[in-house]
Amino acid sequence: MSTERLIYLPLGGAGEIGMNCYVYGYGKPGEERLIVVDMGVAFPDMDGTPGVDLIIPDISWLRENRNRIEAVIVTHAHEDHVGAVGHTFEALGAPIYARAFTANIARHKLKEYGVEGKAVRTVSPWPETVKLGPFTLGFLPISHSIPESSGLVIDSPAGRVIHTGDFKLDTTPLVGEPWDPELWREVSKDGVKALICDSTNVFSPEPGRSEASIGKNVEELIAGAENMVVATTFASNVARVKTLAQAGERAGRSICLMGRAMRRMIEAAVETGVLSDFPKVINTEDAGSIPRENLMLLVTGSQGERRAASAQLARGKFHGIELKEGDLFLFSSKTIPGNERGVIRIINQLSEKGVDVIDNSNDYHVSGHANRPDLETMQDVVQPQIVVPMHGEHRHLREHVKLSEAKGRAGVLAVNGMMIDLTGNAPKVAEYIETGRTYLDGSVQIGALDGIVRDRIRMALNGHVIVTVILDEDDEPLGEPWCELMGLAEQGRSNAPLVDVLEEDLSQFMGRAGDKTLTDDDKLEEGLRRVTRQTCMNEIGKKPEVTVVVSRLS
Amino acid sequence: MSTERLIYLPLGGAGEIGMNCYVYGYGKPGEERLIVVDMGVAFPDMDGTPGVDLIIPDISWLRENRNRIEAVIVTHAHEDHVGAVGHTFEALGAPIYARAFTANIARHKLKEYGVEGKAVRTVSPWPETVKLGPFTLGFLPISHSIPESSGLVIDSPAGRVIHTGDFKLDTTPLVGEPWDPELWREVSKDGVKALICDSTNVFSPEPGRSEASIGKNVEELIAGAENMVVATTFASNVARVKTLAQAGERAGRSICLMGRAMRRMIEAAVETGVLSDFPKVINTEDAGSIPRENLMLLVTGSQGERRAASAQLARGKFHGIELKEGDLFLFSSKTIPGNERGVIRIINQLSEKGVDVIDNSNDYHVSGHANRPDLETMQDVVQPQIVVPMHGEHRHLREHVKLSEAKGRAGVLAVNGMMIDLTGNAPKVAEYIETGRTYLDGSVQIGALDGIVRDRIRMALNGHVIVTVILDEDDEPLGEPWCELMGLAEQGRSNAPLVDVLEEDLSQFMGRAGDKTLTDDDKLEEGLRRVTRQTCMNEIGKKPEVTVVVSRLS
Repeated sequence: MSTERLIYLPLGGAGEIGMNCYVYGYGKPGEERLIVVDMGVAFPDMDGTPGVDLIIPDISWLRENRNRIEAVIVTHAHEDHVGAVGHTFEALGAPIYARAFTANIARHKLKEYGVEGKAVRTVSPWPETVKLGPFTLGFLPISHSIPESSGLVIDSPAGRVIHTGDFKLDTTPLVGEPWDPELWREVSKDGVKALICDSTNVFSPEPGRSEASIGKNVEELIAGAENMVVATTFASNVARVKTLAQAGERAGRSICLMGRAMRRMIEAAVETGVLSDFPKVINTEDAGSIPRENLMLLVTGSQGERRAASAQLARGKFHGIELKEGDLFLFSSKTIPGNERGVIRIINQLSEKGVDVIDNSNDYHVSGHANRPDLETMQDVVQPQIVVPMHGEHRHLREHVKLSEAKGRAGVLAVNGMMIDLTGNAPKVAEYIETGRTYLDGSVQIGALDGIVRDRIRMALNGHVIVTVILDEDDEPLGEPWCELMGLAEQGRSNAPLVDVLEEDLSQFMGRAGDKTLTDDDKLEEGLRRVTRQTCMNEIGKKPEVTVVVSRLS
Repeated sequence: MSTERLIYLPLGGAGEIGMNCYVYGYGKPGEERLIVVDMGVAFPDMDGTPGVDLIIPDISWLRENRNRIEAVIVTHAHEDHVGAVGHTFEALGAPIYARAFTANIARHKLKEYGVEGKAVRTVSPWPETVKLGPFTLGFLPISHSIPESSGLVIDSPAGRVIHTGDFKLDTTPLVGEPWDPELWREVSKDGVKALICDSTNVFSPEPGRSEASIGKNVEELIAGAENMVVATTFASNVARVKTLAQAGERAGRSICLMGRAMRRMIEAAVETGVLSDFPKVINTEDAGSIPRENLMLLVTGSQGERRAASAQLARGKFHGIELKEGDLFLFSSKTIPGNERGVIRIINQLSEKGVDVIDNSNDYHVSGHANRPDLETMQDVVQPQIVVPMHGEHRHLREHVKLSEAKGRAGVLAVNGMMIDLTGNAPKVAEYIETGRTYLDGSVQIGALDGIVRDRIRMALNGHVIVTVILDEDDEPLGEPWCELMGLAEQGRSNAPLVDVLEEDLSQFMGRAGDKTLTDDDKLEEGLRRVTRQTCMNEIGKKPEVTVVVSRLS
């Protein structure tokens, strides 16, 4: 009979940036009691996930083992860590543990699903701990860009593991607790089996900079502005919103928050008392009556999102406010790879209005994640037996493993679905679990492999032809085949309408078709599809998606 | 009666990067004789142009005025300058003028359209000129990243205009003529009315670096590599392909070109004698028999294009070659905004194979365009009366105008469609011309505003439902409505198949519908569409695109 073991299983976030979801387990193989760390979302794009609203980890494995789950722990309130707690709560049924501010955000998410707030339990920071089956778990404060970000101290009979969560080493972070190496050293001093560590900035060679380092730059910039000032950043970057708002206030400007996410996040932070010295803000309705030179808007949409406040302001009036020649627009953010087109579109629209834009400048933005030297510092402080990189694409995880090995420390490259046995001295892959992504699409969840999104992409690339034929009781065609085109050129090589050429060719096919074809729906559909694709290829050089509707009067 | 005038009219490339097309005219208003400078393409993306093959300028205005066109001039052989000569030749009917290498590429493009090569006329560089109606035009050598890149000296009775084409100030460009300030000063010394100038890198504050500056870095990198080396860059960056190939050769490696565009471009350069000292290359078929440590592949796909050689190598075997642990892959390129996802996908796939990747490094890439201080130098050399920025998005053009004005020189912000009268001392907008984009889609051209691509995007975002109803001779429904779904969840809130819920609701609608509706196709379609969208919204939270097919037996 096998002995008990300690396992680590990433279900999201290891091999991608986004939708973080990591599982720890302790017990006999197959009977481990489980805790889930974070339940985040990722964001869709037109390239791979058109029409999708949000992406969440495929939690099939957790659902199958739901009776083994002790808790879902949330390290901090960013969407890629907390975003999916509402969508998955019913399936997992486990209580959620978080610190007060994060718990506040999590409760809002559950409320949208009609789940009562008491499902979320608030835990104070280390040294308070909670007992979760075989685990004892504590929230270890660490600096990031949102209040109460925490690493996790996870104790089990197999030893102590530290899960960093998202972090940077910032001794003056403006919100949240500063990086406290003494605290982390103290917690680590009796030996840490494994450090599960953020990898986002492993390719950034310089030490990270403090949030406090940009305050003065922003202040000077705003003080020098002569007209309206607009600044955008991630709404969830509470530290930055505070930096910007304070700079605006010091320049004598009234601050107005625009965009639902921005207002909600700041409200939650004020409500939970983690943001006590935030400037007074004015309502959107009152902003229009403030002289332009005395106003500063803090808006959502730093990543070029089409429906966010920044995009709306770039396109025209938003809540009665219109940007003009000589206004200043600051992107206090870094454009995430893949979002460039959207951001550039906004910058050009602002340029057309004569607005001066500052984007992607290190003077007005610092990252919320630990850079390469900071990752080394973390290892030096914690002195773990092994390092397991998380929160990164494959290239980040691989580089982080290399970095650890260069420091003489074992690194384990574990991507989503690799269950790692951390019990012994040499960690090893215990099992491969089927993982993937689930799409929130409108109000339902669909699988990434269901073919639904694949069909959408195909229609977008190839267009869609609908062919309708009617057959009478004797399986004889009634009238001619009928075509509808969607997303295809109306005319091709024959200089006749494509729909006419198609209907003519399909008509000929029907005329030639024998009983064997006419009585067999599959054969008939296949034939009509083939003719449609061939004719389109000849006429317009494209093979469209084809839907054939055969109606039989019987 | 009005006097003659000199006009400048950008039809593509001013307000965007790509599909360059600039028109100059001289004569009485509305009767100006025209020359067209460049006829380039832009590349589609999934966000805005799914399924499209290439984007070219809308040349409706030129087509309407084709009897006034003297010539199409091509400054250099990059796709965004020469790519559309084949697609537009028949519509314009004008001869094409270019230097020998560019002419070679242009002839290949025309051949694809069955046009004979003699339509392209070769011109030697300055001081040779050609007379084109009221214009005298010469090709003024300038450094870029492809052989025989040229600015244009455009003389008319209204004075001299200089059109820079794409350029950098490189005195050691490896291919093409070096920057020769004396030549440009000489040409400009009697006064230049307007400088029409590349704006691509106006936001880059440092002086540009020479192509020669990276050769040593690449050599050292390759010399230090222990296994296979693969490098990618734009196939049309002939200078870079040469830099890479020579570095590989010096490291004792056999060079193999992979990807059709790469081979074709180098062949054309060798054929026209502009690339005489390019290393001997081996065939793809022979590459497999060379020891890995003696091989260097130069491949297409630096922008992550899915079907290019780099993507194929990242996914698996390509022409029998497979990358392995410890191989080196160099992106000797900068990722163009919008292409990041594709490039990152490749890097992560390579990471999974254990391949070491270098990307976006200034050590192994220099830009082919003039940076901000270089643009100032160009103005200092040419001393034009006014500067008209081109080859840039709105933000670039605006910044370039500001730069000129800061130097005490008038700048004109002219975007696509703005016809500028350059005749007098104060340039002014003479007219606004309708411009836009034409899509090459399969084998046909479609308009950007035809709604075809819009429909594709809608299907991709919303899915597509096809509703079929049949009515008999008396306008009575024959059987039940029928639905087909494409790109939609199969099941929603009712836990019954969506298609069943839809058909039930549509059936009820048909049952309730009166004669007024049943006899009127528009009313019937509208009603069925409304029910379909409403039911989908209730069931799955999405409103799909709906195609209604009403068949009447009559």
